[in-house]
Amino acid sequence: MPEEFKIKRRVQFAETDAAAIMHFANYYRMMEEVEHAFWRSIGMSVLTLYNEQHLSWPRVATGCEYFAPAYFEDELELALSIAKVGNRSVTYAVEFRRDGGRIAAGRTTAVCCTVSEGVFKPTPIPEGIRAKLRPLVQATAAQASRR
Amino acid sequence: MPEEFKIKRRVQFAETDAAAIMHFANYYRMMEEVEHAFWRSIGMSVLTLYNEQHLSWPRVATGCEYFAPAYFEDELELALSIAKVGNRSVTYAVEFRRDGGRIAAGRTTAVCCTVSEGVFKPTPIPEGIRAKLRPLVQATAAQASRR
Amino acid sequence: MPEEFKIKRRVQFAETDAAAIMHFANYYRMMEEVEHAFWRSIGMSVLTLYNEQHLSWPRVATGCEYFAPAYFEDELELALSIAKVGNRSVTYAVEFRRDGGRIAAGRTTAVCCTVSEGVFKPTPIPEGIRAKLRPLVQATAAQASRR
Amino acid sequence: MPEEFKIKRRVQFAETDAAAIMHFANYYRMMEEVEHAFWRSIGMSVLTLYNEQHLSWPRVATGCEYFAPAYFEDELELALSIAKVGNRSVTYAVEFRRDGGRIAAGRTTAVCCTVSEGVFKPTPIPEGIRAKLRPLVQATAAQASRR
Repeated sequence: MPEEFKIKRRVQFAETDAAAIMHFANYYRMMEEVEHAFWRSIGMSVLTLYNEQHLSWPRVATGCEYFAPAYFEDELELALSIAKVGNRSVTYAVEFRRDGGRIAAGRTTAVCCTVSEGVFKPTPIPEGIRAKLRPLVQATAAQASRR
Repeated sequence: MPEEFKIKRRVQFAETDAAAIMHFANYYRMMEEVEHAFWRSIGMSVLTLYNEQHLSWPRVATGCEYFAPAYFEDELELALSIAKVGNRSVTYAVEFRRDGGRIAAGRTTAVCCTVSEGVFKPTPIPEGIRAKLRPLVQATAAQASRR
Repeated sequence: MPEEFKIKRRVQFAETDAAAIMHFANYYRMMEEVEHAFWRSIGMSVLTLYNEQHLSWPRVATGCEYFAPAYFEDELELALSIAKVGNRSVTYAVEFRRDGGRIAAGRTTAVCCTVSEGVFKPTPIPEGIRAKLRPLVQATAAQASRR
Repeated sequence: MPEEFKIKRRVQFAETDAAAIMHFANYYRMMEEVEHAFWRSIGMSVLTLYNEQHLSWPRVATGCEYFAPAYFEDELELALSIAKVGNRSVTYAVEFRRDGGRIAAGRTTAVCCTVSEGVFKPTPIPEGIRAKLRPLVQATAAQASRR
């Protein structure tokens, strides 16, 4: 069973809209927040020096399904796992929960890149980083990658 | 061939991030802006009274693919069409173009709802509104719906 | 000496801009977050029912001075106190600190209003609420109000 | 009489909050948008090369007064003028108008800086730029600076 990396995150007033619910674009900001909190939890940053190279992880695809609205001051649980690790990319899955119930589910695919003078160049995920991602990889994805 | 509804939209400084590109969540705000501009272009609003009922269109799924970054002060063209009209839902497609080239492509599925005292209740899309959406429906979707 | 109400708040990536610092408008969102956290800490909400009236606190003036930039992943301390309590209004002061040093200082003046069907009407701050604000009132302001 | 530089700007849905009005922090984003549009109107950018130096204008103080709320889809007029030009700083004034009536008034003080490797260093405003700012300087400020 995959581990999840979880944080609590309260819906702020500026994140709501005139329909009195959290604006749908803000789920994407939260998806990024839990991902970055995960990097910090393993002693790194999403923007990092690795073997003297600046690494960054631009997004190539993102998506979200919404099952129930979130409201001002709701305390959400954001649960991060990894749906897939490829040679150069990672697909994160984030579940948004409130009182144990799932209210939204998002995905982000990011590509490992070196950055030099503003130019992003895809690069294989360094093994030292790959090892730190492994505990979050979902069972089915893990099995697939073992084959 | 489907018509497209297009607007120009410049990337603002507050929409960039420390990677010096437009933050990926802001594409979703732009997707909504072109959709709402379309509603205005047909003399309506996304929040509307229709036959004395308050209608609203909460999102159930959104997604975006990113092909190239957008930068501060880029003038983007946002091109809206409709990938699918169901009984109660619409799936919008938005292409982000710069100098004629496609830099991102997003989708939003919204459900037609009546709203009363904060409660959203799905309802079939009124025929008068459906008629106004039709010109934007993509050819393949239109063919499918004719069958 | 006035008490301060403090929270920790990390600068998120989406809050930075292409100058690689926190965008100046986001200080205002943080000023609101610490204020709302304070309301929760006294068992209330900024949007509240009080004696069967819906109360809200629209802003009439805000301002901020910036002494040093804030960067991605900085852990800031937001320290809230009250510069002034009038009959119907409160002026909050928020200091932004990093590693003990002050990097910005903001002010917000909000007016106590009843809200009914979307209409905001100023109203004297109820004594029960005023009592809860008192511990945060700055010394000089407190002295002034005692006179 | 000072000239004003004006743009139209519609309030977008993502800029509203659960009180069904434009969130107060978004006025600051709009203040920046009209300033940047002004730079473009004089053939420049707020981020610019000037005599082979990268110039940027970090903010040292901002403020806003709110006279009436702005609502979703309101078409606002943003009118920029300059309250003061110092040796190294500019203070912009922005009026927010709707149907000719003033709904908010903001100020931003920005300091002319050279930027090199992420370090901001204040520098006198180059005369070539100062000349382009002059038409927007408010009468009283202009008189003061003539003395």
